[in-house]
Amino acid sequence: MALTDEQTKEIAAQRGQATSTFRAVAPALEEILYHPLPVLDHGFVRVIDYMGDDAAIVQAARVSYGKGTKKVNEDAGLINYLLRHRHTTPFEMCEIKFHIKLPIFVARQWIRHRTANVNEYSARYSILDREFYIPSSDQLAAQSKSNRQGRGDLVEGKEAERVFALLKNDSEQVYDHYIEMLNENESGAVINEKNKGLARELARMNLTLNYYTQWYWKVDLHNLMHFLSLRADAHAQYEIRVYADAMLDVLKRWLPITYAAFMNYRVGGASVSAKGLAALRAMLAGKEVTQESSGMSKGEWNEFQAMLKS
Amino acid sequence: MALTDEQTKEIAAQRGQATSTFRAVAPALEEILYHPLPVLDHGFVRVIDYMGDDAAIVQAARVSYGKGTKKVNEDAGLINYLLRHRHTTPFEMCEIKFHIKLPIFVARQWIRHRTANVNEYSARYSILDREFYIPSSDQLAAQSKSNRQGRGDLVEGKEAERVFALLKNDSEQVYDHYIEMLNENESGAVINEKNKGLARELARMNLTLNYYTQWYWKVDLHNLMHFLSLRADAHAQYEIRVYADAMLDVLKRWLPITYAAFMNYRVGGASVSAKGLAALRAMLAGKEVTQESSGMSKGEWNEFQAMLKS
Amino acid sequence: MALTDEQTKEIAAQRGQATSTFRAVAPALEEILYHPLPVLDHGFVRVIDYMGDDAAIVQAARVSYGKGTKKVNEDAGLINYLLRHRHTTPFEMCEIKFHIKLPIFVARQWIRHRTANVNEYSARYSILDREFYIPSSDQLAAQSKSNRQGRGDLVEGKEAERVFALLKNDSEQVYDHYIEMLNENESGAVINEKNKGLARELARMNLTLNYYTQWYWKVDLHNLMHFLSLRADAHAQYEIRVYADAMLDVLKRWLPITYAAFMNYRVGGASVSAKGLAALRAMLAGKEVTQESSGMSKGEWNEFQAMLKS
Amino acid sequence: MALTDEQTKEIAAQRGQATSTFRAVAPALEEILYHPLPVLDHGFVRVIDYMGDDAAIVQAARVSYGKGTKKVNEDAGLINYLLRHRHTTPFEMCEIKFHIKLPIFVARQWIRHRTANVNEYSARYSILDREFYIPSSDQLAAQSKSNRQGRGDLVEGKEAERVFALLKNDSEQVYDHYIEMLNENESGAVINEKNKGLARELARMNLTLNYYTQWYWKVDLHNLMHFLSLRADAHAQYEIRVYADAMLDVLKRWLPITYAAFMNYRVGGASVSAKGLAALRAMLAGKEVTQESSGMSKGEWNEFQAMLKS
Repeated sequence: MALTDEQTKEIAAQRGQATSTFRAVAPALEEILYHPLPVLDHGFVRVIDYMGDDAAIVQAARVSYGKGTKKVNEDAGLINYLLRHRHTTPFEMCEIKFHIKLPIFVARQWIRHRTANVNEYSARYSILDREFYIPSSDQLAAQSKSNRQGRGDLVEGKEAERVFALLKNDSEQVYDHYIEMLNENESGAVINEKNKGLARELARMNLTLNYYTQWYWKVDLHNLMHFLSLRADAHAQYEIRVYADAMLDVLKRWLPITYAAFMNYRVGGASVSAKGLAALRAMLAGKEVTQESSGMSKGEWNEFQAMLKS
Repeated sequence: MALTDEQTKEIAAQRGQATSTFRAVAPALEEILYHPLPVLDHGFVRVIDYMGDDAAIVQAARVSYGKGTKKVNEDAGLINYLLRHRHTTPFEMCEIKFHIKLPIFVARQWIRHRTANVNEYSARYSILDREFYIPSSDQLAAQSKSNRQGRGDLVEGKEAERVFALLKNDSEQVYDHYIEMLNENESGAVINEKNKGLARELARMNLTLNYYTQWYWKVDLHNLMHFLSLRADAHAQYEIRVYADAMLDVLKRWLPITYAAFMNYRVGGASVSAKGLAALRAMLAGKEVTQESSGMSKGEWNEFQAMLKS
Repeated sequence: MALTDEQTKEIAAQRGQATSTFRAVAPALEEILYHPLPVLDHGFVRVIDYMGDDAAIVQAARVSYGKGTKKVNEDAGLINYLLRHRHTTPFEMCEIKFHIKLPIFVARQWIRHRTANVNEYSARYSILDREFYIPSSDQLAAQSKSNRQGRGDLVEGKEAERVFALLKNDSEQVYDHYIEMLNENESGAVINEKNKGLARELARMNLTLNYYTQWYWKVDLHNLMHFLSLRADAHAQYEIRVYADAMLDVLKRWLPITYAAFMNYRVGGASVSAKGLAALRAMLAGKEVTQESSGMSKGEWNEFQAMLKS
Repeated sequence: MALTDEQTKEIAAQRGQATSTFRAVAPALEEILYHPLPVLDHGFVRVIDYMGDDAAIVQAARVSYGKGTKKVNEDAGLINYLLRHRHTTPFEMCEIKFHIKLPIFVARQWIRHRTANVNEYSARYSILDREFYIPSSDQLAAQSKSNRQGRGDLVEGKEAERVFALLKNDSEQVYDHYIEMLNENESGAVINEKNKGLARELARMNLTLNYYTQWYWKVDLHNLMHFLSLRADAHAQYEIRVYADAMLDVLKRWLPITYAAFMNYRVGGASVSAKGLAALRAMLAGKEVTQESSGMSKGEWNEFQAMLKS
């Protein structure tokens, strides 16, 4: 993980000056505010700002329910109720802003979550750093045989050596050529006085998708949880899942009650279809249910069995 | 303007406990945090929370522009540049949360701004208060003759007296009947033991559109400015414009540099069409331009003339 | 249900002129295109336009999966897979546009679904019709004792008579006064030459929330299904549920495969928490599980029991 | 531009079967429906489906304005009025769906427009084609000296030769290694039986940003015009501008009245600040205005001068 010197100084400055506020404060989150949490070989997640705490969710719900909240006024109980019944609007009342450094191919998945605010480093304006992602050997997986978008066994031995060599050499080479085409090195000095240097907005196209980019990403709590429920899932690609995992730790510090409810109702929960419910009721009544009698497809039946066993 | 006792106590409690934070703080906004700013006869706007300050916009832009920001690193200059060129994403990095009390017919206009988070008081759960909006006599306007959605002269004298009487009496009467149908008074006591009382979700339909509702409304700065540019405009209905005006004051306290840029580029600015630009260039070259030669419609020509005179 | 003469003529004109297109066509939906489907006493839903069919969802998914689709190329199988795994983007590739007439208090719930396009009749510009909603006697429900936002037994006998009288009389009276304040009757004639007439944008505030409004509402299929899963639910207020029910019929005509999948996975399905899954596994293994041992709250346990029985 | 055989067959099939519909039809758009419009060296834009025509915008506006529309019922006049006054909701009532093939670095800019629906080819599932973008020699521009995100003179002669060689060789090489790491050629055959083959979701990271991807992109007319006003602008990068230009031609076929209004009010128009308006008024009154007396910054003054001259 590499912060620029400027960023390191900025963090020191920001953490040096505590100020007084009347706003809701989340003490455990303040402890790590601005600090980068390392992810992958050069990436990080750091919290830049946040709005609200567990109590702010309850407060917003109380505006909705008015005097009706009296019956459910215990905070954890209300938060659990809201999440269970998908009353999502009170969770939109909290907001968090991250600074994230991540490989471009991960950024391309991430940006598909549209309900968020983003400021990305622009390679039209500035030169990207020589930082690229290389998987660790325990993540160098082969294509799954059973799952078209999944990973199978590890690639090992000579094949692994060859893959690492290709990834590293190509990454280095395309960057060397990027700099050569720009005719400007990373500190801004002209390389060859006779050349004009290719426009940055063009030269960047020579970089590979494992190069790191960075952005500010701001999102409300409801949409953050939606992101996490998809990206902290076992089906998500490892390289984005590790970011989601780091953000789950942030969520735990920020909103401990909501975090616990989220783990119970979303991360650890499941959806059951009408056919699945019918099968469950029959099974609990002692009847045998088979894939055929359930009306489910083979794939669905396997998923249903896995849900009941794991 | 009427806060409930509970709300008044809450404000006192919240303003009693300043806490230390490492986050960006806007001192002039902290001064009025939680305090209701009165609007109309019973409404208010109060700031519940906020994220970011002018420097946070600059900071987000610096992530985008990277080393490219060095040339434009003076804060006000950069903020003006961003707003002028509609580089809107850095403004999305600030967020604000309001508690607003407003008549239902105003709420119906307001909610059309979709990119915001809302928690509204639910009349399915709880009983609405006996609070309704009556225009002041200097706002009791007749239908405009020239503008199908505008106001003209004041309604005065006997006609005004009659209008006030109708508005007040109908408002009082529908509330009396609302309570009677609920069979439950505002403090929750049953009125007639023999009756069941109509469901709240049904009884509420008897209230008129001038009744007050309230909500938490959270929005990012870009969308707030879009709201304000439409709703603080002279063409906006007075009853929503006064809320926008109160929020402009909030904006000035929160982000003084952005506020000044916003007043210059949006509130005080204008859009000119291709035909308008051609007309301007001809006029500046000393040529006479008429509606006919401009190619504009009569309405458009009048708007163009007004823009150049006012 | 009342269409204006103008609307009736428009429908006849639109259904008179079939045109040739290369686009995807849904024949069963064409049969009812433009025709109003009656809802409540004066409301309706009618389909104005649509984009895509079941095959369009498959086609969009094939762009995503590329050659990877070959294994799951049977349409119904793929649509079921997508919906089960919440791969929602292919469903966004279909779009539908409705014209809806509905009471204002229903419109206020409906508009909270933000990801849609709306053009509502403006009472700033035009005069609303004398049309208001009165519940039928089999929907005149008392407040539920157990559910703060629900309905209980029917209100009957003298109490019902009184409620009907209050609702009708107040609705008629506020409209009479609306017209009087406007000083302009429904056909546009001035009532009293001596009066100026209150601005439409003000006079409308005297109408009650059961008055009908109308709008064009356009939404993509993913967001339509989200709307329907919440509003066709037994917990939704009856007055919006009947609109959702009418739209379910539309969905069935438009996209029969998606409709069947939606009924199975969403409408008829359920969410189970981590604690719920643990309880299910224990129960299927023959162990007794109680509320206490499940770790669920009382309310949650009751919901869990209901899910397994109904 | 390269369509796969499968896509070519699909187009022939789709254009072979015209069907009858009661929906609004745009004849000039039907002529090119499904046909790819070539962009860059391998890219294209093709229209897959659309909803609405110019009359549909007028129709939606009429719902809003009710009887109030009578005064402005001439279609072109109303559309001009709506666009001039930024009454944007009627434009949201039209929708269009494109199939687009574009380089990844262009896709990364494009996707920042969030209010759209997207299905992108997934390189987790499937193998990307060996197709990459190489600028034509008249687009091989040097970095602009004056504009940090712009292009200056052309790179020519030996420098250009070297740049072309680097771009082509690196593109070819990273693809060769992509295939080698996958251990599977483009037709799906295993290359080396001894190797496992790297997971597709990992191997893709070795491709450069000039590789082509493709997606379905569906958007409403209001957001399409917002996209076009930013991306058909002279400040947009050439490689995205050519897509916007192709889509402007589509807009002209689809909605000729709206297209003309859009060119006048957006593409050919400009925004003027409060200071700019004050300067204009003074200049038209024959007063001299300088940068200093205008209160504008140097950059802003230059932009203002350019607006009045070009």
